[in-house]
Amino acid sequence: MIIIGELINGSRKRIKQAIADRDADYISDLATQQAEAGADFVDCNPGTVGEQEVADMQWLVETVQQSTPKPISFDSPNVDAIRRALEVYTGEVRPMINSITLEAERLATMLPVVKEAEANIVALAMGDQGMPDQVGQREAVAQQLIDVLTSEGVPSDAIFLDPLVAPVSAKSEAGSQVLQAIATVRDYCPDCHIAAGLSNISYGLPNRHLLNRTFLAMAISAGLDAVIMDPLDEKIMAQLRAAEAVIGQDEYCMNYLQAYRAGQLEV
Amino acid sequence: MIIIGELINGSRKRIKQAIADRDADYISDLATQQAEAGADFVDCNPGTVGEQEVADMQWLVETVQQSTPKPISFDSPNVDAIRRALEVYTGEVRPMINSITLEAERLATMLPVVKEAEANIVALAMGDQGMPDQVGQREAVAQQLIDVLTSEGVPSDAIFLDPLVAPVSAKSEAGSQVLQAIATVRDYCPDCHIAAGLSNISYGLPNRHLLNRTFLAMAISAGLDAVIMDPLDEKIMAQLRAAEAVIGQDEYCMNYLQAYRAGQLEV
Repeated sequence: MIIIGELINGSRKRIKQAIADRDADYISDLATQQAEAGADFVDCNPGTVGEQEVADMQWLVETVQQSTPKPISFDSPNVDAIRRALEVYTGEVRPMINSITLEAERLATMLPVVKEAEANIVALAMGDQGMPDQVGQREAVAQQLIDVLTSEGVPSDAIFLDPLVAPVSAKSEAGSQVLQAIATVRDYCPDCHIAAGLSNISYGLPNRHLLNRTFLAMAISAGLDAVIMDPLDEKIMAQLRAAEAVIGQDEYCMNYLQAYRAGQLEV
Repeated sequence: MIIIGELINGSRKRIKQAIADRDADYISDLATQQAEAGADFVDCNPGTVGEQEVADMQWLVETVQQSTPKPISFDSPNVDAIRRALEVYTGEVRPMINSITLEAERLATMLPVVKEAEANIVALAMGDQGMPDQVGQREAVAQQLIDVLTSEGVPSDAIFLDPLVAPVSAKSEAGSQVLQAIATVRDYCPDCHIAAGLSNISYGLPNRHLLNRTFLAMAISAGLDAVIMDPLDEKIMAQLRAAEAVIGQDEYCMNYLQAYRAGQLEV
């Protein structure tokens, strides 16, 4: 599993404050902790808008890349913020742009940047019709988006298709529909990555972490191979390691046993 | 999910003692506790052999059915013990016979009993070649066994097909193979139940409960609808309730919310 550490996100109050205060120690710590806990990418989402977002993104990227060699995921719909991030990024590993969609305008502005940067790209299964809702719509949009990206020369293995998780509290079938979409996309593009944020699944329900990690196990089983999550959450990390072992993605259960010996599975 | 409570099993030291001592209070308590925790069937496995097993099974069934109206699963390869259990069983709900296989001798002796009793039957995906090992073998044996049972007049919805879980510690692909088999059998016989014991998945590894409940979530997602487990294990019950909510088998998440309000999800 490829873990994208989600904690540096300006929509969180404490992070918003740290960004506003240019509190580099706080952001550095959070980047380092996530990397040490197993994050393969460190997501940076300024959570601001316009020129402020461009400046905040630059500061976040400069701060994070001084604390860890892990690649960064530039998380913003603002193409100027993405461009600035790419300019200042000095990492050796190809970064990630989060995100593109099939919406005409967003595709037109973001695709040239993705291509020029040769970056990984989170591709949300959403078109101009908005969030997919009907059975099969998610798969159709996902496949069309993959087709567009690969026809433009983006390598399959640079694509992180996000099927867009919707809450089961609003619609009982929301979970099974997204699991089905993951399985379909996995068949359609075996080389693509399939990435998801988890927390939407549990929106509106109590004890959300339990639902999130249960959904993660199911999604891994369906073909998910990347996840946007909090790697400091020991319970979800334990479930992830267990899921990898169960599904045969952890040869000789080495990672599972290592996590056990490190006391990380006692949850 | 149909939960078959597994705790009354003579292979457990404390149970063996209780059976030997005819300690009805202990067995009754365990039956009641499992029923209250959500067991739909109470499994009774004397864990002895020959005539002793017949007598032990009779005592277990008489003891359990005095403590709970839940139907009983008669768990023994010994057809005489099963016959005796059926004779003394007074429950109003159709009991379960655990188990039959495609092995010629076991099939020949057990099938007439199953048919006459009109009981539910746990059907292990195993033939005279022993435990399925090769890719596709599990599915082939399962389908053949379902065909034999239905052709003999056993209703599909009385069949609890057990795909036989094997340890991932011995073979990395063991988990994915059984999940694939569950999905295939679910397609092949939508009306059949698919039941599994969980603990084999984690044999030889530490922190087995974590692996067992992770596998349960994945298996539910693949089509499992019955499980032989310990309903007194709060963590696995919480994961089961979460899995049902995620997969859309818990309308309006009512069971999940009820479990939450009862304080059963704080694990």
